[in-house]
Amino acid sequence: MSTVADPRARLGALADRPVIRQALELIGRPGSRQAIPTPAAVIDRAAMNRNLIRAATICRAAGVALRPHAKTHKSADLARHQLTAGAVGICVAKVGEAEALYAAGIQDLLITSPIVGAQVAARVADLAAAGASVAVTLDHPDNATALAATARTDIDVLIDVDVGMHRTGVPTPAAALELAAVIEAAPRLRLRGVQGYGGLWQHIPDATERHAAVAAGMEQLSAAIELLDRHGHDTTIRTGGGTGTLDADLAIGVLNELQPGSYTVLDVQYRVVRSDWLDSLEHALFVSATVINAAQPTSLTIDAGLKAFATDADRPSTDLGEYLWYGDEQGLILTGAPDRPRLGTHIELLPPHCDPTVDRYDVIHVVEDDILVDLWPVHARGRSQ
Amino acid sequence: MSTVADPRARLGALADRPVIRQALELIGRPGSRQAIPTPAAVIDRAAMNRNLIRAATICRAAGVALRPHAKTHKSADLARHQLTAGAVGICVAKVGEAEALYAAGIQDLLITSPIVGAQVAARVADLAAAGASVAVTLDHPDNATALAATARTDIDVLIDVDVGMHRTGVPTPAAALELAAVIEAAPRLRLRGVQGYGGLWQHIPDATERHAAVAAGMEQLSAAIELLDRHGHDTTIRTGGGTGTLDADLAIGVLNELQPGSYTVLDVQYRVVRSDWLDSLEHALFVSATVINAAQPTSLTIDAGLKAFATDADRPSTDLGEYLWYGDEQGLILTGAPDRPRLGTHIELLPPHCDPTVDRYDVIHVVEDDILVDLWPVHARGRSQ
Repeated sequence: MSTVADPRARLGALADRPVIRQALELIGRPGSRQAIPTPAAVIDRAAMNRNLIRAATICRAAGVALRPHAKTHKSADLARHQLTAGAVGICVAKVGEAEALYAAGIQDLLITSPIVGAQVAARVADLAAAGASVAVTLDHPDNATALAATARTDIDVLIDVDVGMHRTGVPTPAAALELAAVIEAAPRLRLRGVQGYGGLWQHIPDATERHAAVAAGMEQLSAAIELLDRHGHDTTIRTGGGTGTLDADLAIGVLNELQPGSYTVLDVQYRVVRSDWLDSLEHALFVSATVINAAQPTSLTIDAGLKAFATDADRPSTDLGEYLWYGDEQGLILTGAPDRPRLGTHIELLPPHCDPTVDRYDVIHVVEDDILVDLWPVHARGRSQ
Repeated sequence: MSTVADPRARLGALADRPVIRQALELIGRPGSRQAIPTPAAVIDRAAMNRNLIRAATICRAAGVALRPHAKTHKSADLARHQLTAGAVGICVAKVGEAEALYAAGIQDLLITSPIVGAQVAARVADLAAAGASVAVTLDHPDNATALAATARTDIDVLIDVDVGMHRTGVPTPAAALELAAVIEAAPRLRLRGVQGYGGLWQHIPDATERHAAVAAGMEQLSAAIELLDRHGHDTTIRTGGGTGTLDADLAIGVLNELQPGSYTVLDVQYRVVRSDWLDSLEHALFVSATVINAAQPTSLTIDAGLKAFATDADRPSTDLGEYLWYGDEQGLILTGAPDRPRLGTHIELLPPHCDPTVDRYDVIHVVEDDILVDLWPVHARGRSQ
């Protein structure tokens, strides 16, 4: 638990790194937030907890289960905060993430990327046999057969339905029905419901357009559910959704389990996605950097570049001035202000895209106000297999 | 060494991961390259070795030292191949990388990002005291003072000179001279020379324009060298350069030590940078992915998305069709060809930008022809502090 007195116990071999040892020395000291070795991922725990409670509260009010997506943070410690706030379990994207979070104490896991192939199936079977409550998604009969061939304990299965993104999922209700038959024929596989996720909907800026996109997608999911129901298949669980669509998902009412991830900490690219729900969330993730060169009159160089942020969406944001990518290890901040930070000063930036940014770091530095209070390993970092 | 019979010894705790165990089982088996669990970083060892030998050969012929930059690969095993091919030592970008590579057996390391602050200085001092031959770059007197205050063994120092990029480096020859005086006054710091690096020059497509940019930058470095020489400072080492400018660096002749990194494996963004030298190099780094959905008539979904590649430069490349980013975990390949790969097939893509792509992975899968022959840990992965 994150309340363990000595974070060293949670850090394992990470605690031997010189830079982690320096961070551990800072815990609890006033002003230590500005002394964290950089570049570093920083989470404001109070702001994060308020986000967790907001999501849990509106889901509970709607009678919908909340299963937050750990692809955002990949941390068992953060996942425990989500469970404490009322989540029914945790989503992960990949089997590797499930293995890492289970090893770090998270019991109830749904793998949202449909599993493919015998190697992945074998690892799912091992994880279930080891005692994890692990559920998987499937979108092709071949992969149901592969999992059935290796499962030696009961494994819950959801059918992933393509709701318009054409990325994963069975393409038609008929294909869902065909897959359901293969699953039902496998003694160890238990069909429990469906998943329908529209990643592209999450960032539609306008709330009305976003709602319309979700509604159209949910019609496709409903068609699959109806056909499965008509043939007596179990569709108890209807999971999907994300941070951008959470209010629309609740209003439309097809899903009874929601999988938001980014709501935990937000990021720059969510700034343009508007709704009362999104406006109620707070930025809780920052990248801390150091001014490493102040020799130029109109720019500062900081030690956070292409390796410190995800670069797929916008640029990092700071009130100090425009940020420019400037190599693997450095960024520029365009400022000639007389009171600009001096050489060696720590500054914090908002990351463009939270999920792949956290994936750049081995630890999350947890702060309360200006104090470093904890270190959380990014347990599933890079476990994308 | 990479010739150790059992790669488990080198992998340490990584060998306990289920996905690594699966990869270890594949080593030496015919066709195993197509069975590597995905997404995965793959290096063709024979092609890589030819690149290493080409660089070593032309540097040796010019009487210039080769100190390859490990920021590209972050692997002590790959660094050992570079040393075997004739490198005089290894460059790293950050102290964290130096710590990781020294722990994995690399002795002679130059940290090319000027060090800033007391925390970083303390770690450099510890590394030197532990026995590493670690040299640092400095670009401000405050940081020379910080290192002098904590060094307890002799540490070699180079002055980083801004040669036009305005990112790091002292801004003028006079500033170099001022810094040299501070370094010389510190009993434990030994001034050994200068560094001048132009990151932006590396990707100028036209060879003539690239040469002109390097020549202009080297005039600035020469001015600093002249002033330092005139005051009796040691400028024995003149280090810098990169893959894109290596032939220009040799022709211009100011640098006597070169730091190329990307030449090891190349990437998509180097395709447009032309010269006989660059045209002689081979692509040796690939990202292996699996077709995870083939339900659409004109696209395939693969399990390599924003978390599998660096996204700062172009898109991944494959002969199968255009690649589209399609989320954190997936990409699309636009193809409706009748003979397109089927569900579950492994494919390989060229990464847009090698350095931050390798930094996404904990291990490099080393192949010869169609056989997985070794696993190299990415020792310094994420050690950007």
